[in-house]
Amino acid sequence: MVKQRKYVVKKHFQGVPKRDDFEIVETELLPIKNGEILLKTEWISVDPYQRAYSSRYPVPYDQFGYQVSLVLESKDPRYPEGSRIVSHKGWCDHSVINTSSGEAPSGLNAVYKLPDLKGLPNSLGIGAIGMTGATAYFGLLELCKPKAGETVVVTGAAGAVGSIVGQIAKIKGCTVIGFAGSDDKVEWLEKELGFDKAFNYKTTDVLTALKEAAPKGVDCYFDNVGGEISSQIISQMNLYGRVAVCGSISAYNADLLNTPKASILQPSIVSKELKIEGYIVSRWLSRWPEAFADLIKWAKSGQLKTREHVTEGFDNIYDAFVGMLAGENTGKAVVKV
Amino acid sequence: MVKQRKYVVKKHFQGVPKRDDFEIVETELLPIKNGEILLKTEWISVDPYQRAYSSRYPVPYDQFGYQVSLVLESKDPRYPEGSRIVSHKGWCDHSVINTSSGEAPSGLNAVYKLPDLKGLPNSLGIGAIGMTGATAYFGLLELCKPKAGETVVVTGAAGAVGSIVGQIAKIKGCTVIGFAGSDDKVEWLEKELGFDKAFNYKTTDVLTALKEAAPKGVDCYFDNVGGEISSQIISQMNLYGRVAVCGSISAYNADLLNTPKASILQPSIVSKELKIEGYIVSRWLSRWPEAFADLIKWAKSGQLKTREHVTEGFDNIYDAFVGMLAGENTGKAVVKV
Repeated sequence: MVKQRKYVVKKHFQGVPKRDDFEIVETELLPIKNGEILLKTEWISVDPYQRAYSSRYPVPYDQFGYQVSLVLESKDPRYPEGSRIVSHKGWCDHSVINTSSGEAPSGLNAVYKLPDLKGLPNSLGIGAIGMTGATAYFGLLELCKPKAGETVVVTGAAGAVGSIVGQIAKIKGCTVIGFAGSDDKVEWLEKELGFDKAFNYKTTDVLTALKEAAPKGVDCYFDNVGGEISSQIISQMNLYGRVAVCGSISAYNADLLNTPKASILQPSIVSKELKIEGYIVSRWLSRWPEAFADLIKWAKSGQLKTREHVTEGFDNIYDAFVGMLAGENTGKAVVKV
Repeated sequence: MVKQRKYVVKKHFQGVPKRDDFEIVETELLPIKNGEILLKTEWISVDPYQRAYSSRYPVPYDQFGYQVSLVLESKDPRYPEGSRIVSHKGWCDHSVINTSSGEAPSGLNAVYKLPDLKGLPNSLGIGAIGMTGATAYFGLLELCKPKAGETVVVTGAAGAVGSIVGQIAKIKGCTVIGFAGSDDKVEWLEKELGFDKAFNYKTTDVLTALKEAAPKGVDCYFDNVGGEISSQIISQMNLYGRVAVCGSISAYNADLLNTPKASILQPSIVSKELKIEGYIVSRWLSRWPEAFADLIKWAKSGQLKTREHVTEGFDNIYDAFVGMLAGENTGKAVVKV
């Protein structure tokens, strides 16, 4: 018998998630049957949507999330013992997946073989070569559709998704401006990732910064945060500008019945004929391999840097999660189990 | 010599436009040359964008706007004497257009023959069968793309554009909910125009109203107003909902440096994967005749009611304009010169 430890959410998060909202539950996993595989978790992802989606599920629920895991035992020949799997089984150290049942690859129930990473670290399977990378890739390329020479602004620029967005935009020949939450992050974006300009939004007047760094206006905006900074950036956009709305982390810890207020967007949307589109990356699930192929190529060639913020230990996932929500990570926040 | 009287804007509007921001100037028009036509204005349009665009032009500027006019004298065989023209020559009683020069049909400089209205009133050329009708037609059909059976919400529903939007949505088989600013308007929308439900936003809780009238959620939102009511409507939208942003009249009289605040849209945009697009109808100028053909057909068949709010007299344009901005009109506000 294999024991499973897993994080169960007992109470819907209110404000910043509390340690007591979770319980670590220990159970015994049943022997696997035909069409099932037994997994040992190696890498666990902590992501903003784990905060945002909390209220969608009745409590108690098992904390969902992407993980890279090793197949310990298999009764599905597609996933042989010793191979590695990406799944959405969440914050657990072992799990059983019935690969033939309802957990087929659809939306957040995706189960797929870890792509051939050509020597890159396996942890990237929940980061730059996983949901995170696909989120950056499709949101930027399918919704913002940046053209070479255009100016792209990214908020949450030093985060998991934002840091990849900015680098893809550079690869596509754009001028890239990032906003992040500390001077260290700003330095990393400019010196390591090749952003044309980055700003600490906590100590910068956003409109002044944009007038300096984007004198021709903003063509594309990749919005990870929502709130007043987004209203300000959108007010500086050019005719037919495109906004991909990936997240609104500024509001995730707010009371749902009391959404924060910010300057309205409609005057800019009309006069500049903007297109603003929100998305969840599972929309393009069948095309993720296309993103992974490009991302692996760019990571191997050094055009894409894939920094990770690693927390060690199953018992520290809560700290990694809350730290990520507070912006403590630079790059992708992952937990090594 | 023909005398021209015209409204000149001397001062950029601040808040509600003031009578003193305008001056009525009298000039003598020169005899027309080859490629020119002399026009006598018959109908003048007052529209929200005349307020919104004020700051774009250096003062003094001639007040722009659509008009239907009679060709008094022509040196361009395409526009013979006695024919009627739609142009953007604004608030003047006579004018000369050089049809061969820079005033070719592009954007707001459009000049075209009044369509064959098949017996409908000529004033519709600046209303339902003019820019107003095209704005409703393309914004709804090209951006919202409503499907039969879907729920469409319109704000400014009793205004020039909104009242046409709602009727087109009904023609396309949608459930249509309108918000307007008086009980009389609400009654008109429900009893005369066939809206499924209309509400007076000044006396209604918008969220409660929508839960009652749109229990399956909102698929399309045609936004004429911006502000908190738009945030509330957008929070009730379904997955892959579409928003056409046509105007933000709630903010037109506000200080430009102090845009009003409202609940942020990003949480709904992401979780419902919404698409929000702003537009100016000149984008589809070459396709306006396509809209006019449908609109004339619907107006002739009685499916489209084209109520007008007529002010008489050149000297009363200012009052018509400010009254329209305050929502005094039901249907299209026009001035008979």
